[in-house]
Amino acid sequence: MIKTIILKNRPEGKPSMSDFEFVTDNTDLTIKEGEVLLETTYVSVDPYLRGRMSDAKSYVPPFQLNKPIQSGVIAKVLESKNDKFKKGDFVSGMLDWKTKQISTGEGLLKVDGSKAPLSAYLGILGMTGLTAYSGLTQIGKPKAGETLVVSGAAGAVGSVVGQIGKILGLNVIGIAGTDEKVEMLTTEFGFDAAINYNTTDNMTAAIAEAAPNGVDIYFDNVGGPISDAVLFNINQFARLVICGAISVYNNTEVPKSISVQPFLIKNSALMQGFIVSNYAEIFPEAMKQLSTWLSEGKLTYTETVVEGFDQIPNAFMDLFEGKNKGKMVVKVGE
Amino acid sequence: MIKTIILKNRPEGKPSMSDFEFVTDNTDLTIKEGEVLLETTYVSVDPYLRGRMSDAKSYVPPFQLNKPIQSGVIAKVLESKNDKFKKGDFVSGMLDWKTKQISTGEGLLKVDGSKAPLSAYLGILGMTGLTAYSGLTQIGKPKAGETLVVSGAAGAVGSVVGQIGKILGLNVIGIAGTDEKVEMLTTEFGFDAAINYNTTDNMTAAIAEAAPNGVDIYFDNVGGPISDAVLFNINQFARLVICGAISVYNNTEVPKSISVQPFLIKNSALMQGFIVSNYAEIFPEAMKQLSTWLSEGKLTYTETVVEGFDQIPNAFMDLFEGKNKGKMVVKVGE
Repeated sequence: MIKTIILKNRPEGKPSMSDFEFVTDNTDLTIKEGEVLLETTYVSVDPYLRGRMSDAKSYVPPFQLNKPIQSGVIAKVLESKNDKFKKGDFVSGMLDWKTKQISTGEGLLKVDGSKAPLSAYLGILGMTGLTAYSGLTQIGKPKAGETLVVSGAAGAVGSVVGQIGKILGLNVIGIAGTDEKVEMLTTEFGFDAAINYNTTDNMTAAIAEAAPNGVDIYFDNVGGPISDAVLFNINQFARLVICGAISVYNNTEVPKSISVQPFLIKNSALMQGFIVSNYAEIFPEAMKQLSTWLSEGKLTYTETVVEGFDQIPNAFMDLFEGKNKGKMVVKVGE
Repeated sequence: MIKTIILKNRPEGKPSMSDFEFVTDNTDLTIKEGEVLLETTYVSVDPYLRGRMSDAKSYVPPFQLNKPIQSGVIAKVLESKNDKFKKGDFVSGMLDWKTKQISTGEGLLKVDGSKAPLSAYLGILGMTGLTAYSGLTQIGKPKAGETLVVSGAAGAVGSVVGQIGKILGLNVIGIAGTDEKVEMLTTEFGFDAAINYNTTDNMTAAIAEAAPNGVDIYFDNVGGPISDAVLFNINQFARLVICGAISVYNNTEVPKSISVQPFLIKNSALMQGFIVSNYAEIFPEAMKQLSTWLSEGKLTYTETVVEGFDQIPNAFMDLFEGKNKGKMVVKVGE
């Protein structure tokens, strides 16, 4: 018996339970030569998946209706007819939202649960960490002493960006949406300052106060009015790393913001959108660096772990309510 | 008798005659050792001057109230006590809007009226040409076969950008605001296609039609809704060269546009604001290249020449009505 979550409807605005459907079937699980049978252990839920649920031109093709949704998954190898994997191995890969599935092994990476908790390979040692590292170093080009502002700072990527910023000698200011998150940024993650946008009337002034020397690098996970407020505070030659725009992903109309062009001209500033795969050539270096910092205790991370395969859609939807702290993962099996 | 134009009021919205004042005086024109006495020949009027008339933080300090306005000027040396210049030389520099003035010679460049018309040194062989060359090559990073869209295409910078684009093997589409300008783009300047935004209902669709392979480089002189329409047509790894935003310079409120961030993320696209002086290190190369192309007949230019010192404010204000074709200059003397 396999459970699968399929995309039933393309969400209009905020995703709702009616956009998802649980399907149970008795697909044959006999593997052929070269294949592995996998049992899902952890499923990653990420804001960018919202984009794939829409039928719009983007960097990855949209999910198909009535087909399984896919995301980063950690799975256990139950059986293997593939030389690269053996029974009992754990792997990470882009896999279906299924309790069990067969894979050719393509795109799967072995992960070592003795070096770091398995879920870390979906987060700080996975796409999350690589996104933070790539965007900050390759676009942000930080120089010690500069000021970095991170939005969505208590999120999976943001919390890593801020910590790497501190390791690299930056003055780091985080923006998040609850007092608890803001507290966590300065105490757990070592940010120099943090701002709760939900309790701050004038974000432009609050950022100016927290960044008296102006903003040299902005790592943007949210877009919308928060990013507008940062623009008023950028310095000459500022670099704006455009990683996500969670504040507008659920908009049903094309969102409006202040015109960025005059700010970019006045400050000779750069805005660069990216996805992590643009920087695949630095992944080996990045993984080595992230693992080292993690083992040295220079990097830490927070996860929000939800239990149960049936909770995957809820966990995904909770991302847009800001209910996660750090990386949101769903634990499905042992 | 010297005439001077001073900034009387900071414009609110569109500049008007009441923001300027003509002053006549009998300042002593006796020069000291190291100085030159200059008589103004041509005055450059440029959209960016609008920014300096406001009291806002920018890359250059604002003009002071009740002081002369400055811009690019070509002047004749009437007397010289500076070894670098002799009577009868013509020079270019950032100078006051005055009929005559004394200079220390600092920042002045000798220009050769036998190699190109004097006014060209305010345009294609001056800041205009350098801006076009620097922005397109250093930020646009063009590769032959790519598609370039230029807004403000019949303007001073835009018309040069498009021509350089053609020299470099790009498919070049221009956007301008009258049928006459659009006609000029394809006939005089060799653009592959041109769109009149004033007679086009759906700019997004018109750009898509003119650029069936999508837009790789956008050289933006205007900002606002035209730039929004381009965004819907950008390709993966597009480069948006943010040179000017004339459509919003006179706004009294912070202008709104569509949020660019989702477009930049989806396309891993770059937006870079700049001013020409950022690229001073390539000016010698750029001047050599522009002069060569000009002498080979590969580059041409259009000027709008207004006669008379008293017409400087009007000429400047006409820029915002799109009354210029190519570089707008005011001829003041011989």
